Amino acid sequence: MTDLKPISFARGAPSLDIVDVEGLKAAAQAAFTADPGGLTAYGTSVGYLPLREWIADRHGVAPDNVIVTNGSMQADAFLFDALVREGETVVVELPTYDRTLLSLRGRGADVRMVELEPDGIDVAALERVLVAGARPKLAHIIPNFQNPAGYTLCQPKRERLLELAREYGFVIFEDDPYIELRFSGERLPTMLSMDPERVVYASSFSKTVAPGIRVGYLVGPRALIAQIERLATGTYISPNMVAQGIVYQFARSGAIERSVETVKTALAQRADALAAALARELPDARFVKPEGGYFMWVELPRGTDVAALFTAAAARKLQFVKGTDFVLEGYESALRLAYAGVTVPEIEEGVARLADAYRELTGA
Amino acid sequence: MTDLKPISFARGAPSLDIVDVEGLKAAAQAAFTADPGGLTAYGTSVGYLPLREWIADRHGVAPDNVIVTNGSMQADAFLFDALVREGETVVVELPTYDRTLLSLRGRGADVRMVELEPDGIDVAALERVLVAGARPKLAHIIPNFQNPAGYTLCQPKRERLLELAREYGFVIFEDDPYIELRFSGERLPTMLSMDPERVVYASSFSKTVAPGIRVGYLVGPRALIAQIERLATGTYISPNMVAQGIVYQFARSGAIERSVETVKTALAQRADALAAALARELPDARFVKPEGGYFMWVELPRGTDVAALFTAAAARKLQFVKGTDFVLEGYESALRLAYAGVTVPEIEEGVARLADAYRELTGA
Repeated sequence: MTDLKPISFARGAPSLDIVDVEGLKAAAQAAFTADPGGLTAYGTSVGYLPLREWIADRHGVAPDNVIVTNGSMQADAFLFDALVREGETVVVELPTYDRTLLSLRGRGADVRMVELEPDGIDVAALERVLVAGARPKLAHIIPNFQNPAGYTLCQPKRERLLELAREYGFVIFEDDPYIELRFSGERLPTMLSMDPERVVYASSFSKTVAPGIRVGYLVGPRALIAQIERLATGTYISPNMVAQGIVYQFARSGAIERSVETVKTALAQRADALAAALARELPDARFVKPEGGYFMWVELPRGTDVAALFTAAAARKLQFVKGTDFVLEGYESALRLAYAGVTVPEIEEGVARLADAYRELTGA
Repeated sequence: MTDLKPISFARGAPSLDIVDVEGLKAAAQAAFTADPGGLTAYGTSVGYLPLREWIADRHGVAPDNVIVTNGSMQADAFLFDALVREGETVVVELPTYDRTLLSLRGRGADVRMVELEPDGIDVAALERVLVAGARPKLAHIIPNFQNPAGYTLCQPKRERLLELAREYGFVIFEDDPYIELRFSGERLPTMLSMDPERVVYASSFSKTVAPGIRVGYLVGPRALIAQIERLATGTYISPNMVAQGIVYQFARSGAIERSVETVKTALAQRADALAAALARELPDARFVKPEGGYFMWVELPRGTDVAALFTAAAARKLQFVKGTDFVLEGYESALRLAYAGVTVPEIEEGVARLADAYRELTGA
C-alpha cells in the first residue's frame, strides 16, 4: 500500500490538463505588446481599466460599480472590512465555504448559519431568524454549485431572498465564482441583475482562467465600491496589473470561452463518473448530483464517524474534506468531494479506496 | 499656457523608457513554459517557492525567513496587522513615506516622528525619546535614498539603531525598496545582515522590474514570518503566482541586473540634471543631492508657502508633492521632487516652471 499514488478529492482547483497554458502565454504576449505602460506602471485600486470595463459590460453595470482585486478572497476581506464590525450579525449558509467562516469569525462577527437545502438556503428558516429579531448586516450566499454542497439556489428562493433583504434592510453578498461552470440544466439570473442596489456580487477568474492568476472582483452600489477603493489603495495601491492585463487579453480574444467549454466538458464527465462510482461502490452515500461546479456533498448514515473515515482514507492515500470543516458544529457524518482536480480513472480508483475505508470502519 | 505638456515630479515611478518590456515578455514565456503547473495553480501564502528561495539566497537567510507578497505595501500591512495594536508606539522618520504614515494612523498607532538628517534618523533624538519612557514596538526606517528625502542612513547610525533596538526591545522595520538603485557612493550593509533577529526587512521588485508587477517581500525571524503566513492565507490564499513566476524568470535570466543598470544610469543623469537646474534656476532651494533612488527633498526659505507654490505650479501644469504630506505637522516650506518618471529635458523644463511659479509667489 506504500507505493499507492495519492488521490485528492480535497482541493477545489482544476487539474493542469484543463488549464489553457498556451492561451495564457499568448495572452501575456498580447498584453505586454498592446499596453506596456498599463501593465508595468502602478495602476489605481479600482484595477486595470480595460478589464474593469469588460466586467462591467458582462454584468450590465457601469465601470464605477466594479472593483478588481487580487483574487476574490481579497475582495471578501475588503467587503467584510467595510461592512462587518465586531458583534455584527452575518447570515451564512449551513454548510458554507470554510474560509468565509474563518474570516467572519476572525472579525468577531455574530455568524448565524441557516440550513442549505438542495434548492438553496431555507428561506423560511431565514425568515424565522429575522422575525425572531436578528438584524443581519449581510447574508452570504453562494448561489450556484455551492461550496461545499454543490447545490444551486432556485429562482423562487432568489426572489424571496431579495424580498427579505429589502424588508429587513440587509445586503446580499452573492458569492458566485462557479456561475460559468454549469454543465447541465438552465442558467438562472443573478440576484445582482434582479436588484443591483441590494446586492454585492463577487466572482473571479480562478475557475475560468486559472487560480494562480489571482484576479477577482466585486460589483456593487457605487458608494460601497468607492469605500472599498479607499481600503484597497491603503492596502496595496493597485492590484496586480500584469495579471489583469493577461486576463483582459485572454477574455477579449475569446480564449476564455474556449477555456470554459474545456472545463465544463471535463467537469460533467467527472461529476458523472463520481456519481456512478459512489452509487456502485458506496450505496450508503446520499448525494445530489450537481449541475455544475467543483463539489459534491456526501452524507453517510447518521452515526458514521467521518473523522475516522478521513484517517482510514488517508491510510489509503485518499484525501477529502470533512463536513465539520464547513459548519460551526455537527455534520460529523458528511464530507465534501471535489472532482475538478482529478481525472475519471482517479475518481474511480479514489471512490474504490473510499468504499474500502468505509467498509473497514463499519465492518460491513 | 493651456497647451503646455504636463510634467510630473509627483509620482515615485519609473518612466516607461527605462522598463524592460521585452525582457518581461521573454520572462513570461519562459515562466509558463518552465512551470505551467506552478504558475496556474493556487500556491501557498509564502509565495512562489523558486522566487522565495532566490530572495532568501540574496539575503543569506533560509527560505523560512521569507514571505513574498502582492507588493511591499501589502507586506507592510501584514506586518502592522501582526505587530501594531491600537495605541502602540511606532517610531518613524520625520519626514516619511506618506502611505506608511496613513497606514499607521489608520491603525490607531501612537506615531512618534524622529527628525531625519542627511545621514539618516537622528539617533540621539531617538534615544532621548526612549529615555523619556517611550517603548516602541517598531521603528520604521527607510535606510537608502529615503522617501521623501533621498537621504541615506550612515553606517555608525545603523549600528547605533541596532544597539538601541536591543536595549529597548523594539523591532527595526528596515523598509528598503531602493537599495539596488545606488548610482554613486558605496553600498552599506543592511541592518538585516547585521542582526537578523532584531530586524524585519521589506523590499520589492517595483523598482528593479516594474511597479505593475506588484511583487514585494518580507524577511524576518521565523516565528513572525509564520504568523504573517497565516494572515496572508486568510486574506488571499496565495499571492499572484503568474507575476511571481515572471519575476523569478526575469531574475534568474540576469535580465534584472541589466534592468537595474539601465535604471541607475537614467536616475544618475536625472538627479544630476535636477540638481544643476535647481542650482541655476532656483538658488533659494536647499537640497542634498541623493546617491541613489527616486527622490530629492527641497527646502525653501522659512516662510515660503509651498501650498501656494503648489497651486502656482499646477497652473503651469507642473506637479510635485508638498512636504506637509510626509509629516504630521509643519514642513510648510518643503517639497518632494521625484525624478524617476521624467526625462532630462522634462526636468529642465519642469524646474523652469517651478522657478517661475516661485518668482510669482515671492515677487522676486
